[in-house]
Amino acid sequence: MDHAKLLFPICRSLTGEGTRKTLNYFEKFNPELNRLKFKSGEKVFDWEIPLEWNINDAYIQNINTGKKYAEFKKNNLHIVGYSIPLNDIFSLDELQSKIYTIKDHPNWIPYVTSYYKKDWGFCLEESVKSNLPKGKYKVYIDSTLKKGSLDLDYALLKGHYKKEILISSYICHPSMANNELSGPLVLNAVLDYIKNKYKNLRFSYRLVLAPETVGTIAFISKFEKDLKKNVICGINLSCVGDERSFSFVKTPYGTTLADDVMRAALVGKENKNEYSFMNRGSDERQYCSPLINLPVCTFSKSLFGKYPEYHTSKDNLELITEKGLKESLDVVTSIIDGFESCLYPIINVKCEPQLGKRNLYQDLSIVKKGKHFGRSTLDVIAYCNGENSIFDISNLTQIPLKEVTSQIEVLKRNSLISDNIK
Amino acid sequence: MDHAKLLFPICRSLTGEGTRKTLNYFEKFNPELNRLKFKSGEKVFDWEIPLEWNINDAYIQNINTGKKYAEFKKNNLHIVGYSIPLNDIFSLDELQSKIYTIKDHPNWIPYVTSYYKKDWGFCLEESVKSNLPKGKYKVYIDSTLKKGSLDLDYALLKGHYKKEILISSYICHPSMANNELSGPLVLNAVLDYIKNKYKNLRFSYRLVLAPETVGTIAFISKFEKDLKKNVICGINLSCVGDERSFSFVKTPYGTTLADDVMRAALVGKENKNEYSFMNRGSDERQYCSPLINLPVCTFSKSLFGKYPEYHTSKDNLELITEKGLKESLDVVTSIIDGFESCLYPIINVKCEPQLGKRNLYQDLSIVKKGKHFGRSTLDVIAYCNGENSIFDISNLTQIPLKEVTSQIEVLKRNSLISDNIK
Amino acid sequence: MDHAKLLFPICRSLTGEGTRKTLNYFEKFNPELNRLKFKSGEKVFDWEIPLEWNINDAYIQNINTGKKYAEFKKNNLHIVGYSIPLNDIFSLDELQSKIYTIKDHPNWIPYVTSYYKKDWGFCLEESVKSNLPKGKYKVYIDSTLKKGSLDLDYALLKGHYKKEILISSYICHPSMANNELSGPLVLNAVLDYIKNKYKNLRFSYRLVLAPETVGTIAFISKFEKDLKKNVICGINLSCVGDERSFSFVKTPYGTTLADDVMRAALVGKENKNEYSFMNRGSDERQYCSPLINLPVCTFSKSLFGKYPEYHTSKDNLELITEKGLKESLDVVTSIIDGFESCLYPIINVKCEPQLGKRNLYQDLSIVKKGKHFGRSTLDVIAYCNGENSIFDISNLTQIPLKEVTSQIEVLKRNSLISDNIK
Repeated sequence: MDHAKLLFPICRSLTGEGTRKTLNYFEKFNPELNRLKFKSGEKVFDWEIPLEWNINDAYIQNINTGKKYAEFKKNNLHIVGYSIPLNDIFSLDELQSKIYTIKDHPNWIPYVTSYYKKDWGFCLEESVKSNLPKGKYKVYIDSTLKKGSLDLDYALLKGHYKKEILISSYICHPSMANNELSGPLVLNAVLDYIKNKYKNLRFSYRLVLAPETVGTIAFISKFEKDLKKNVICGINLSCVGDERSFSFVKTPYGTTLADDVMRAALVGKENKNEYSFMNRGSDERQYCSPLINLPVCTFSKSLFGKYPEYHTSKDNLELITEKGLKESLDVVTSIIDGFESCLYPIINVKCEPQLGKRNLYQDLSIVKKGKHFGRSTLDVIAYCNGENSIFDISNLTQIPLKEVTSQIEVLKRNSLISDNIK
Repeated sequence: MDHAKLLFPICRSLTGEGTRKTLNYFEKFNPELNRLKFKSGEKVFDWEIPLEWNINDAYIQNINTGKKYAEFKKNNLHIVGYSIPLNDIFSLDELQSKIYTIKDHPNWIPYVTSYYKKDWGFCLEESVKSNLPKGKYKVYIDSTLKKGSLDLDYALLKGHYKKEILISSYICHPSMANNELSGPLVLNAVLDYIKNKYKNLRFSYRLVLAPETVGTIAFISKFEKDLKKNVICGINLSCVGDERSFSFVKTPYGTTLADDVMRAALVGKENKNEYSFMNRGSDERQYCSPLINLPVCTFSKSLFGKYPEYHTSKDNLELITEKGLKESLDVVTSIIDGFESCLYPIINVKCEPQLGKRNLYQDLSIVKKGKHFGRSTLDVIAYCNGENSIFDISNLTQIPLKEVTSQIEVLKRNSLISDNIK
Repeated sequence: MDHAKLLFPICRSLTGEGTRKTLNYFEKFNPELNRLKFKSGEKVFDWEIPLEWNINDAYIQNINTGKKYAEFKKNNLHIVGYSIPLNDIFSLDELQSKIYTIKDHPNWIPYVTSYYKKDWGFCLEESVKSNLPKGKYKVYIDSTLKKGSLDLDYALLKGHYKKEILISSYICHPSMANNELSGPLVLNAVLDYIKNKYKNLRFSYRLVLAPETVGTIAFISKFEKDLKKNVICGINLSCVGDERSFSFVKTPYGTTLADDVMRAALVGKENKNEYSFMNRGSDERQYCSPLINLPVCTFSKSLFGKYPEYHTSKDNLELITEKGLKESLDVVTSIIDGFESCLYPIINVKCEPQLGKRNLYQDLSIVKKGKHFGRSTLDVIAYCNGENSIFDISNLTQIPLKEVTSQIEVLKRNSLISDNIK
């Protein structure tokens, strides 16, 4: 949350100083992050890197009263993203169609952008807009829209295997907390976790922080071959800071390792949702697009578009909590621990092993509420055929992933299990 | 409905003048229809072409009062189909077991046939039967049962591909409207539609009008090799004239292209039923039989056997409507339009295409009730991987087939989509 | 039930005279049963054959009053299985932790064993335990625990095909009726049934009676290669004597022939349960273990652990009935009849056969409640494609297995069906 408070006020967008400042901030903590720059006008697949947008100030001002409204300096959501520079006078009537509000929440400011059509506009509380005094207004937008660059960061932590786990988030939204600050914050913590816990990684991990959509497309275009060859599971982090629920967006057919992984990581959670790809909305759109076709799910607490504060000024630091962020980190680290433990566990003995002689089972056979002690170890073993992943086993047994992993660790120490990875 | 009124009174059966008259009628409008004749006694698979049956008149007449009942000339359902000629006197008691009624609907006449056992009988309203005056009755059946032929019509509209869509209906029932007149009427309209809309067909279309069961078996026996080689999807039309619901009977395992096609064509319909093959009852029985195994579904509004008027005199011109027939035609033409548009659409660009620069997307990113404009285009594209058929895409996205097809047409015009057909 | 009354009192365990006596008893009726002996200390996969345990007497006796409790001679459940010999004095306090009861059922005696840790203990009614008078107690256990053997029986009935149906049950529990006597009793009756009904078997049948877990592991270790090569379907019998319901435990993924078989055998039963492998508890644990991986389901009436009397003195001869046993026998014999009839039926004619000319169908086409007579024959034929097993056909049509088999028999007699077995 300390990071959150420092990063929240920065005005990020697809491009520009705000985004660079944010990337710089994360690089300070994690020098593994590499900067990648794409120049305005560069072609990335079907897209073109846009001009760089920077903004110093913006407001509208009633000529009669001198009162300013929609001041960028008070809340950077007031200005429509990528608004062109302007300094002109409009009547209130002319201005109306350039001011966006949320009718259902008259005291919230919406978040609006116009990346690909040169335009301008302001976002206001409906309660303010409907009470704007009549008269002429000065419209002042001190922005620049020039050739520059789109910036993104990525890190590649190499493991024993070339196969990669991709963990991504995005970095292009101004002052909103759940969408988007929570994602980069958790990604940063994940990077810390991996570095601190695993000196010798089994799998490789690729972490990405890129402006959504065009930034991710640029990233994919750069590493297409590697990604297609190596990524076996990807998780995109979006809206991972609230405490309301656990959600994930499945891949288009819901049948990849990433889907199994997310399902397993949520086994035992109470308030959870599995959304079809029809509910997609973040960079899984690019990773899972037909000709890219990577196994990437988006993990969220409350899914984008499914919580009322989404894309408004109410998506602020009150919506996300230390606990909410920690719960998300915990989900991601349980997945990493699964990969680092044993991806395709295979039992080494025929028939059930005798757990008793290894002190892994109670000695006295007495049924307590239909459950033997040591039963969950046997449940895990029952599915350790070298074909099921550790995540499948959690899904098949409905034993939480963390417990499956710790059972597998015990079985590995007892030489009962090996990894059947190919 | 004009066609319906002209064709309704004709007494059709497996064979005979009524059936030929009906086929002649359709041939007048569609010279593409070819007549196929099978001689009585000819073997078709496990079956034999039956004798030809014709009938001029039939009734029973109370000797005392002279009053006639069950007059063929008043309603051709009164005579059991394939009744042998007869002119004899019976007591009422003797007659009872030869008169069929519907106890639950005392004012309706049932439809009964005895194709394969030489027999005779009459069908009456239960209310009439139970009030027949005692006494002797003259039974008069002026029919013939002689060597002749079984007739059927088919048309083959050749397209660029040899692969065929089969559309069939049957032509062997006397005066009943939903089962069966509706089927041949819609098939006739489908033939018109294809000819008028598509000068250069992509796929080939085979249309069939045959007496149910033995006629269809004869047809299959004649074209077995071609059908097995070319038919990729078939739709049998039965009971397609009422307005009550949309139904289809799945193939035995429900997993063929025809099943996907029917499911897609009903996406968005409100009152619809998907019946298992256990509910089969029309010529899907032959097309889907184990050693034929063609991908053919039966499409119905109300399914045979599932509406009370089925196989009774109440299945009359009041049950079917212009609107009901039109709705069915619309389902079939939406399928044809799908095939003719793009069977296995594949997107040509990596990652999501930029719809904005093609004016296929709104420029301003603002969420309205969780839905972007242009979203359904992206939903369609998300599944255009060259493996999903246009019908799969409708099923996966739950966007109605017609809308998917029109989206695909727009994308084709923008060179974003090709057909991955092999 | 006569067998049951004779066998009930015998004190069986993993090893020992009680078990041998029981095997001797069955061998008298079925000389096809072969005895297999494994010596104490012999390694079987991850396990070791335990010492042989025999017991003559056991009780606890209040020194003051001379009153005996937990007398083995009154109920052999009173002694914890595999209790070591003992003759010593304990205070009531010291004794408490060695006496097992069921709090929820104060008048029932639990069943407890300590096979793999040298220990001793007694099982009592909670009502008795809580009223034990204070004072010193003599603990007397006249048992032996010595090198000896583990015994099991199996029979192999050879058929035309080497492929085998495995039918197993277990023989290691003292006086309990549903778990376990019912299993060996039904297995014995199955053996009778096969011998009496089939002089020339198509398939081979392997029947096994072994001490649960270690006995079955020993059996598998002995025949591993044969079992893996030949067993196409296995059924383990456990708790098959009550009348409460029909249950089966699926294989780990629920997709083997054995699963189809059990599902089919229960089509049409009213009170039935299909349990996931997570509910396993008998020898399916060994047969379905990852490196053995045989297609074996456990069939039960009430599943172990799911009925209150399980592993208590109330699992007595009142719980199982002649009718209950007969119903289970009926399930197993319906399966055998299916295998012996036609495993992969394939229709010999293209399109539907004409049942009428073979008198397999009514001649008059009249619909009665939407169902034609002869319809179920056509339903069966619709799925006779040589790929579906006779059991699949029952599951697909939901026609009870017995009726499917009798339909298939009629069709075979009419030369319409052959077996597509490979």
